[in-house]
Amino acid sequence: MQLLRIGEAGAERPAIRAGDDAVFDLSTITPDIDGTFLAQDGIRRARAAAEAGELPALNTEGQRVGAPIARPGKVVCIGLNYSDHAAESGLDVPTEPVIFMKAPYTVVGPYDDVLIPRGSSKTDWEVELGIVIGQTGRYLDSPETALDVIAGYTVSHDVSEREFQLERGGQWDKGKSCETFNPLGPWLVPADTVDDPGNLGLQLWVNGELRQDGNTKNLIFGIGHVVWYLSQFMVLEPGDLINTGTPAGVALGMAGQPYLKPGDVVELEIDGLGRQRQVFVQA
Amino acid sequence: MQLLRIGEAGAERPAIRAGDDAVFDLSTITPDIDGTFLAQDGIRRARAAAEAGELPALNTEGQRVGAPIARPGKVVCIGLNYSDHAAESGLDVPTEPVIFMKAPYTVVGPYDDVLIPRGSSKTDWEVELGIVIGQTGRYLDSPETALDVIAGYTVSHDVSEREFQLERGGQWDKGKSCETFNPLGPWLVPADTVDDPGNLGLQLWVNGELRQDGNTKNLIFGIGHVVWYLSQFMVLEPGDLINTGTPAGVALGMAGQPYLKPGDVVELEIDGLGRQRQVFVQA
Repeated sequence: MQLLRIGEAGAERPAIRAGDDAVFDLSTITPDIDGTFLAQDGIRRARAAAEAGELPALNTEGQRVGAPIARPGKVVCIGLNYSDHAAESGLDVPTEPVIFMKAPYTVVGPYDDVLIPRGSSKTDWEVELGIVIGQTGRYLDSPETALDVIAGYTVSHDVSEREFQLERGGQWDKGKSCETFNPLGPWLVPADTVDDPGNLGLQLWVNGELRQDGNTKNLIFGIGHVVWYLSQFMVLEPGDLINTGTPAGVALGMAGQPYLKPGDVVELEIDGLGRQRQVFVQA
Repeated sequence: MQLLRIGEAGAERPAIRAGDDAVFDLSTITPDIDGTFLAQDGIRRARAAAEAGELPALNTEGQRVGAPIARPGKVVCIGLNYSDHAAESGLDVPTEPVIFMKAPYTVVGPYDDVLIPRGSSKTDWEVELGIVIGQTGRYLDSPETALDVIAGYTVSHDVSEREFQLERGGQWDKGKSCETFNPLGPWLVPADTVDDPGNLGLQLWVNGELRQDGNTKNLIFGIGHVVWYLSQFMVLEPGDLINTGTPAGVALGMAGQPYLKPGDVVELEIDGLGRQRQVFVQA
């Protein structure tokens, strides 16, 4: 069972997917898949309604798939959270999590075009496990109890402009918040249906060639640790998104640094969380 | 004429101030002072309604003053934008704007208590000119035309935890997004009523002692430049907040580094934009 949002940008309809060809309209349960819905036990209510056969079928043919959650209150990212990616970036493995932010408006659908910014020569890819927060997290007690505030997981593409991020005068945020720079989805997969989020393969292909092939078991700071740690520095709110970091294989770390060009196609997949596909186009 | 929001947190009522003792209810014009209101010519409509005597008076006695805008889509900050503050921070004057972010949930009212985070020993102050965006800004042509997307100005307190920001493993955002870390207001002052935003005195006092005493004429990157520059890296949306940087005089740069303690009172003022006052309390 997965949650998703179907329809044009800004007018998505909440939906629930109960099988390959079974998508149901959640509009009778909630106006959107957002923090309010998640905090008010929405996933359980949606599942119960689906199982009771109370939801109308939704015809998704030819329809856009949006991000699986409404625009988050914040998008918090963990940097250098796989040792192989730290090494390819020429940076030390951190002793505690590196935190940066993306502007929430960067979140777009999993199949939407991604814009290469004007003046960009170093637009890069990053497949990441995305955590969606379901309950308020404030000074959480431990990495173990931190898992309780997680609503679910999703595929997140932390698109990055390396010149803007690293060579333009300071703080990574400058290369992380360009328009369309956070494709998300296709699904929000409820946490209670993911057996072990700390052991998920994640892959990314550029024009069909495998570029990233990692596993969340190699996260330096695991999922509970990241959520617990963040809650010491900020209040996590329902509907917030956390990007947990990317494994090796980005253009920055490759011979010849083959950054993305207009027309390039990037595909991303995480075990059990679905697959994305974006065409990169000039802004 | 200024815009403001009156009432308990999360239930503020939009209002317009036409003189020291004349505050009128804007609820008949708009449900809130937000991006939609600003983008749809709201300031002009509010002013016209006030001048026509169409708005009911609002009794503000004993009522909380909220931030003058609803929660922004993003809060973008410019770092080291006064040369005296760069010097006291032991950092070079930047050759182009340094960009970082605060989580939008940090925005609170101008007289609300500010929470010193648990584990903090270096909570610091920063008075800043805040820019509120009124029209979409995307790849703007020039610093001059960038001024057209500004709705108005406000007093912004970019509260910062220096250990979290500078000594905890990377990227300033970690010390910038703690709960209540962005008091804003009391007013949104429409851009067309500010003679020269590039020549405004700004002051900050701690327990009555003057600590910061700057002027926006000393901004390294001026108001139009900052907005134009940001629009090359992200889309500015109506309702967004930009903190333009702080002048010298923060605790980090003072002898003995007198960081804030519970019970300390911080007051901030910018010429024509009003005055804030916060009590700092332990989280």
